[in-house]
Amino acid sequence: MTDTNKLDQYLEQNLHTSIEELKTFVAQPSVSAKKHGQPECARLVADALEKRGFQVTVHPTEGAPIISAVRRGKSARTLLFYDHYDVQPAEPLDLWETPPFEPTLRDGKLFGRGVSDNKGDIANRLLAIDAILADQGELPCTVKFLIEGEEEVSSTNLEAFVDSHRQELAADACIWEFGSVDFQDVPVQYLGLRGICYVELEVETAAMDVHSGLGGTIFPNAAWRLVWALASLKNEEEEVLIKGFYDDVIPPSEEDLLYLKALPDTADEYRTRYGVKKFLGDMQGGMDLNFSEAHKASCTICGLNSGYQGQGSKTVLPAKASAKIDFRLIPDQKPEKVLKLLRKHLDSHGFEDVKVTYLGGGSPSKTNAGDPFVQLVVNTAKDIYGMPMQIVPMSGGSGPNFIVQEALQVPIVSLGIGYPGSAAHSPNENIRLNDYLRSAKHLVRVLNAMGEGTAH
Amino acid sequence: MTDTNKLDQYLEQNLHTSIEELKTFVAQPSVSAKKHGQPECARLVADALEKRGFQVTVHPTEGAPIISAVRRGKSARTLLFYDHYDVQPAEPLDLWETPPFEPTLRDGKLFGRGVSDNKGDIANRLLAIDAILADQGELPCTVKFLIEGEEEVSSTNLEAFVDSHRQELAADACIWEFGSVDFQDVPVQYLGLRGICYVELEVETAAMDVHSGLGGTIFPNAAWRLVWALASLKNEEEEVLIKGFYDDVIPPSEEDLLYLKALPDTADEYRTRYGVKKFLGDMQGGMDLNFSEAHKASCTICGLNSGYQGQGSKTVLPAKASAKIDFRLIPDQKPEKVLKLLRKHLDSHGFEDVKVTYLGGGSPSKTNAGDPFVQLVVNTAKDIYGMPMQIVPMSGGSGPNFIVQEALQVPIVSLGIGYPGSAAHSPNENIRLNDYLRSAKHLVRVLNAMGEGTAH
Repeated sequence: MTDTNKLDQYLEQNLHTSIEELKTFVAQPSVSAKKHGQPECARLVADALEKRGFQVTVHPTEGAPIISAVRRGKSARTLLFYDHYDVQPAEPLDLWETPPFEPTLRDGKLFGRGVSDNKGDIANRLLAIDAILADQGELPCTVKFLIEGEEEVSSTNLEAFVDSHRQELAADACIWEFGSVDFQDVPVQYLGLRGICYVELEVETAAMDVHSGLGGTIFPNAAWRLVWALASLKNEEEEVLIKGFYDDVIPPSEEDLLYLKALPDTADEYRTRYGVKKFLGDMQGGMDLNFSEAHKASCTICGLNSGYQGQGSKTVLPAKASAKIDFRLIPDQKPEKVLKLLRKHLDSHGFEDVKVTYLGGGSPSKTNAGDPFVQLVVNTAKDIYGMPMQIVPMSGGSGPNFIVQEALQVPIVSLGIGYPGSAAHSPNENIRLNDYLRSAKHLVRVLNAMGEGTAH
Repeated sequence: MTDTNKLDQYLEQNLHTSIEELKTFVAQPSVSAKKHGQPECARLVADALEKRGFQVTVHPTEGAPIISAVRRGKSARTLLFYDHYDVQPAEPLDLWETPPFEPTLRDGKLFGRGVSDNKGDIANRLLAIDAILADQGELPCTVKFLIEGEEEVSSTNLEAFVDSHRQELAADACIWEFGSVDFQDVPVQYLGLRGICYVELEVETAAMDVHSGLGGTIFPNAAWRLVWALASLKNEEEEVLIKGFYDDVIPPSEEDLLYLKALPDTADEYRTRYGVKKFLGDMQGGMDLNFSEAHKASCTICGLNSGYQGQGSKTVLPAKASAKIDFRLIPDQKPEKVLKLLRKHLDSHGFEDVKVTYLGGGSPSKTNAGDPFVQLVVNTAKDIYGMPMQIVPMSGGSGPNFIVQEALQVPIVSLGIGYPGSAAHSPNENIRLNDYLRSAKHLVRVLNAMGEGTAH
């Protein structure tokens, strides 16, 4: 048995030092979509792990380096952390109150791109490890890290890496990058992630833009071609019209539906936080919203680009148009299949001229709520939050869990520093210091429990 | 009778001086869509007119200044020139071989934004006037100028100005801003312009962009709303689906159809020049293309803007989306009516959330081919081009002709320096010096004929 009071005290006293370390991570931009600063950020994180006595390897890939690290612990059991050091682009920059890569503390929050997703969690893991090492001089179980730099661009090089390093990464359980309390401050355990298939559609109808007075009624218009192609993909009832898209969908289990029903109503929270006036399909909230958020497959336009977008009017017929599209997939839809069905759909609807570029993707994944490690993590939360974690069978987001789950056959849980106002992927991304502290406290308990062999 | 040889000689000898004057106009940016540099450019043009003994007034408006100018001539007859000193935005800048506002001569061409549309024509009129004044010491007829600075943004302030200055602008005939030879070097007389109704459609579904993993299946997506609204406006057969849109259309006259049939086939030229692989509706060229280019109403997407448009992928649900739309109208469609029908269409199709902003427009206009002034201009071309001008009953473009025609009740013809490769509204806009010279030669003949009272 360890003295958790002493550990908690250490965490409180060293919170500031840990935040300073996090700031150095955030101040180093690492925008994977722009291939900006990833190797430099990988080096920072690798150094931080080495400082804690980890044996660290920075593996070059065709994209950004992947970091693996291990430090042996007292018990034979192994816990693997998966995180990523890359971040989303910071645009639109003018909406940030303080510059995205100059992390700033105000009102008990730290602002900056990546403070929540996911650099904050990396720093938080290190703080928990520091506390245990300070107290016990060694780790209660073996701890491994797998930290990549392309999570925000669909983890292009992770699968090949994990497949060829199964032995090195082998573990009994895995803690995934994110985790958060919900809007009522209840800690939440996300047990699944939707898959994703991210594509760019491009149309080019001429060698140059043409005066719309000349071309409007005689030349094909790239923007119109794109609009019609997009409109053929999904109707106003939000049904994806690609033949076969829903064929492999497995409905949620009865157990999952019970967990879903137990979740709080997020409707008011979403209305206030995001300024959304209505939900899709006239959903009012409750179970409808919880179900739809994560247990439905989606086709989302993430961006549209064609012709003149400046101030005022320009009478031009665009030669080029493009759209970024994000399909979210639920078990057992696969991105490779969706990609094929999409191409087939476009061809059979007369859109052979619409080029499809696959920008990345991954399968959905899911850990069963009944797994002993899930129960360990869920129950150690009680000590800090006054309640066990609330189980959410699936999250609406995506990530490369499926790669680790398929290769290492481990239960995957989430535990982290987030909260619903963190604005991940948006301007003014932030974390609350109090969440940061509680997450570290939870982590030291999970690590100690792993060492005691009380589960799994 | 005047000695046209002497006039031609003057024009040839002073071509370079005139091009230098044009360069000063082009070097002064005057992008109306960006409200950039218009007053400065108006001043330059006004000074140039004063130098030629014109009585010039620069009238302030709520937008850019409007220039009116008059110089009395020998006969009682009056010729009015309509031109504009504003230009289209120069973007995309990286496609220009030399900077748009640094006019550059190469290969017998002058490159720069506005060299063709329409600053080149202004300088060209001045060269013709210089030649006549040098030869005769006075103008053969009274010459007036009406030069505005908002033609590229739908001439917002022209109508009120013309309506309240009818006396001052009164004329027997009007020469409109542009004119050109066609791709076979045949001088062309455009006798009509389509109307235009330019709008921006905007959708806003939330207060901020949201992570697509969270919002994709529960929040409305501004980009999807826009795509569906757009798709409801026009089908893939190019039929505008707005109820009542075609109600006021008057089919072309038999005479117009005969002129259309006499026009050359532009198909190969368009394929080569614009890199268009196919024409709309599988048109092959000839009469089909000539008819469709100007005698059909259009609905053109000029621009699309939503969400992430950068490199790679960003998983975001856009809160905002917008499109710029250009309707081209044929007699007797009116932009005010189209605007109302559009709003009604969106409302009745469930798109009350799509905001419509009118960015400007105007009615179609048309001068009859049989008018004596038309015949004067068409026939004086023979001396320079070896053939009379080819009559095109309507041009696909738009302009505020209707304002002048309705207020002043004058025939309106076009005469200018353009050619099909001029890339008006596009990068690398240019004119050929030879066209410039021929246009000035044609102009001096028209001015002299006006003085001799041989027509109208």
